Amino acid sequence: MTKRKKFPRESFVSMTELVLPNDTNTLNNLMGGRLMHWMDIVSAIAGQKHSNSTVVTASVDNISFRSPIRLGNVVTLKARVTRAFNSSMEVRIDVDAEDVPTGHKFESNSAYFTFVAIDKDGKPVEVPEVEPETDKDKEYYEGALRRRQLRLILSGRMKPSEANELKSIFDIKEAVK
Amino acid sequence: MTKRKKFPRESFVSMTELVLPNDTNTLNNLMGGRLMHWMDIVSAIAGQKHSNSTVVTASVDNISFRSPIRLGNVVTLKARVTRAFNSSMEVRIDVDAEDVPTGHKFESNSAYFTFVAIDKDGKPVEVPEVEPETDKDKEYYEGALRRRQLRLILSGRMKPSEANELKSIFDIKEAVK
Amino acid sequence: MTKRKKFPRESFVSMTELVLPNDTNTLNNLMGGRLMHWMDIVSAIAGQKHSNSTVVTASVDNISFRSPIRLGNVVTLKARVTRAFNSSMEVRIDVDAEDVPTGHKFESNSAYFTFVAIDKDGKPVEVPEVEPETDKDKEYYEGALRRRQLRLILSGRMKPSEANELKSIFDIKEAVK
Amino acid sequence: MTKRKKFPRESFVSMTELVLPNDTNTLNNLMGGRLMHWMDIVSAIAGQKHSNSTVVTASVDNISFRSPIRLGNVVTLKARVTRAFNSSMEVRIDVDAEDVPTGHKFESNSAYFTFVAIDKDGKPVEVPEVEPETDKDKEYYEGALRRRQLRLILSGRMKPSEANELKSIFDIKEAVK
Amino acid sequence: MTKRKKFPRESFVSMTELVLPNDTNTLNNLMGGRLMHWMDIVSAIAGQKHSNSTVVTASVDNISFRSPIRLGNVVTLKARVTRAFNSSMEVRIDVDAEDVPTGHKFESNSAYFTFVAIDKDGKPVEVPEVEPETDKDKEYYEGALRRRQLRLILSGRMKPSEANELKSIFDIKEAVK
Amino acid sequence: MTKRKKFPRESFVSMTELVLPNDTNTLNNLMGGRLMHWMDIVSAIAGQKHSNSTVVTASVDNISFRSPIRLGNVVTLKARVTRAFNSSMEVRIDVDAEDVPTGHKFESNSAYFTFVAIDKDGKPVEVPEVEPETDKDKEYYEGALRRRQLRLILSGRMKPSEANELKSIFDIKEAVK
Repeated sequence: MTKRKKFPRESFVSMTELVLPNDTNTLNNLMGGRLMHWMDIVSAIAGQKHSNSTVVTASVDNISFRSPIRLGNVVTLKARVTRAFNSSMEVRIDVDAEDVPTGHKFESNSAYFTFVAIDKDGKPVEVPEVEPETDKDKEYYEGALRRRQLRLILSGRMKPSEANELKSIFDIKEAVK
Repeated sequence: MTKRKKFPRESFVSMTELVLPNDTNTLNNLMGGRLMHWMDIVSAIAGQKHSNSTVVTASVDNISFRSPIRLGNVVTLKARVTRAFNSSMEVRIDVDAEDVPTGHKFESNSAYFTFVAIDKDGKPVEVPEVEPETDKDKEYYEGALRRRQLRLILSGRMKPSEANELKSIFDIKEAVK
Repeated sequence: MTKRKKFPRESFVSMTELVLPNDTNTLNNLMGGRLMHWMDIVSAIAGQKHSNSTVVTASVDNISFRSPIRLGNVVTLKARVTRAFNSSMEVRIDVDAEDVPTGHKFESNSAYFTFVAIDKDGKPVEVPEVEPETDKDKEYYEGALRRRQLRLILSGRMKPSEANELKSIFDIKEAVK
Repeated sequence: MTKRKKFPRESFVSMTELVLPNDTNTLNNLMGGRLMHWMDIVSAIAGQKHSNSTVVTASVDNISFRSPIRLGNVVTLKARVTRAFNSSMEVRIDVDAEDVPTGHKFESNSAYFTFVAIDKDGKPVEVPEVEPETDKDKEYYEGALRRRQLRLILSGRMKPSEANELKSIFDIKEAVK
Repeated sequence: MTKRKKFPRESFVSMTELVLPNDTNTLNNLMGGRLMHWMDIVSAIAGQKHSNSTVVTASVDNISFRSPIRLGNVVTLKARVTRAFNSSMEVRIDVDAEDVPTGHKFESNSAYFTFVAIDKDGKPVEVPEVEPETDKDKEYYEGALRRRQLRLILSGRMKPSEANELKSIFDIKEAVK
Repeated sequence: MTKRKKFPRESFVSMTELVLPNDTNTLNNLMGGRLMHWMDIVSAIAGQKHSNSTVVTASVDNISFRSPIRLGNVVTLKARVTRAFNSSMEVRIDVDAEDVPTGHKFESNSAYFTFVAIDKDGKPVEVPEVEPETDKDKEYYEGALRRRQLRLILSGRMKPSEANELKSIFDIKEAVK
């Protein structure tokens, strides 16, 4: 029996948030922790849609925060599952922000969160594979292997010498010439 | 004139949170996003104490979440600045959780956040250097260079071939034998 | 000089919310007031996008709540401006809910909110007209006149005898035969 | 056996709220959605007091928002059941606001919410009838039939031609002369 | 010129709150700290109404919590100013709770909070005196002197030997027989 | 069998909070009720650590608020159990606040909360005795008896004439000379 595959657009979720006073620091900028809270919710929903089960956050990849997001700005978060590995799923989140009255819109940041699908007793369950459709889908799908190796190395569960996929991102050949 | 240095213990902050219903998912486990929100607050306070200025979150390193934290558990977050680079500071956060009635206590996770110190107009300001005291301090201080190179590579601001410090973590010699 | 017109899709906003414990009553159903809070936020953002200014809620039309939405469900709210009248805008919001693990998705309700665009001193400002594109757009655009007359009558600002548009909805000819 | 009746004053509830920063928009005015959230809570409590059971929001009638309510203002919400129909109850809510330091007090708005009383399995249960006492009670009690017909028509559950009570509010005779 | 006096009923405030999941501990009982938060808000509003100025909490008298208040209960808080001393006011708060579906209503507790009226620069301002009307008003008004002396002693600002009013409550004559 | 004793340091908890907009009044000062909410949480955790069981707030002693705490300040709350009486525990909380950018740090206030340890059915359970170690521990331990008598008198459960320990604080001999 072949396992069902799902397209990234089937798990796509868009979430919009208005930056309120309690979300900001004393300079009226959105606090990074509040943004990560929203990123976690939107990507957990994407993971639920892909797996049709409850999910728990397993890890968060490196995130850089660039332009400050201001009080009153509208933040849009878009999430989709990029690749699945047994019971775990990588979700990409793209965040942008807009000062709606002036129409000034800017990219804030992107990030990858991974989730594990679990049943009612908290045991991991298998999830459908991802079938990439668009060029972007394919790019994210292929990069997922490298990001997964980096995660495994950083959490001490893989030796760097075994991370064949990762070598390309670190451009190892050039690095050791 | 020599710039003043500060010890990690001078920026040390400990924060305790009780896991309430709204912090949890439908399985009564603490949501990862809520925990990151707390991690951001405690580490921002450490950054403020080190720099005596307002700070903004610049980046978050890879975080793995291990054991689930439950409704009613007490979460303890400990943060301290490990190293400073001009106007930016790396903060290490160690999180543990306890089911107080049974006394069961467990490590949850560790992470590194970086902050930039800014003045009232949002311009970066110089911060004191870090003077590591204990063995742990020194270990974190030394690792900070490697983690910084990884952050710069991952955000596209450094070429992998220039990341000399990082090579040790990726054990490059062995990798290319 | 012709006033610029905007399409409904230019003000379209989609917002996704996860039903958390504090959003529910003692039977674990989403409270109506919490849902209206979200409806107000999503439709205010649509009004801001259409008018490129700050907006305030002027009125809310009759809303019926049908199927209960449960703790842990994902609620999707979609809003767009249907018609503008000087400084006021009517926004239609469609709400649906999904129990993601089972994939059970259902329509919750629809509603119309009206907003007034204001400047920094709180004075009303003119907004672009709406140019309906699709069949749905046109249906909402045309119904807007009738709904506006009903609002004016219900708030005591129009006599029923003057509400010509409204007569069609109340099917007056048949009613008085 | 005669069903017990209850007076509107038996379900009367008064609720006071202080407008905090997170309740306001960027002009420091109370957001309409936050006010509706409070209106839902106070009227649900009135419905619970009348029916001595759990209640769910069934519908909200047209609401107009007039004077803006400001950050720091004190909002008073008064609710009472005006009429019951089998398992459903209409609740009237009167909202006023006060800038306490200056003593400036003003009416904000009034609205009607309807609730259905349910048992532990979510099944509707019969509620006591309402016995109007004061002139105001009687006015609200009598208007309830017309408002109910309007609700049924607007939600597509009654034909306008059957809405005899509603004709008076729409002044049908004059309208079709 | 005689300073204006105000009756306790002029500062009377009634506030109703529904106990939601996040207000409770793991046994589904309202947390004491949440109740004190509400007590502070309702009594601050009473102080604002009496003084027509901004107020800050100066002290809280001993509070005992008796019967547990449960998730879903309706809490009613009633506050009024009992006596004023220059720029400070004592406010009495009476709290009761009700399990509305069963109609079981019970007294929870009473407490005294004191507030100082301040101007925009944070300087204390004179407030009207209190004119007690009812027997209860007079009882609270007279007891206020004793409670004030106890507060001053407990905060180290009065010697016990000077607390003449307090002696009656401690029944000193009998105590030293 | 001898009952196990615990040192105050075994129940010590330190909690750090950042003052956010919603925690403040219109003058940007932390509201007393919000601070009491935090004091209740930190002291409940201390009570849980001492008793290894769930606890409920039984009473709060007189609290005076001195210097205002400002928006953006960092508040540190330190709690420890000072003495136990069968199933109840007295917890002392010391609060200080810091304006971190300027480094200005100040004591805010101290208070005593009492908690009762309960089992899953809400029945009181015995807790370990407290073994004071340091001079401070001993001072708090000894004062606990006097504070307990004052609580019992204020809640009407003890006659003043029986409060032998309390006489010392009220300096009775001098008072009646």
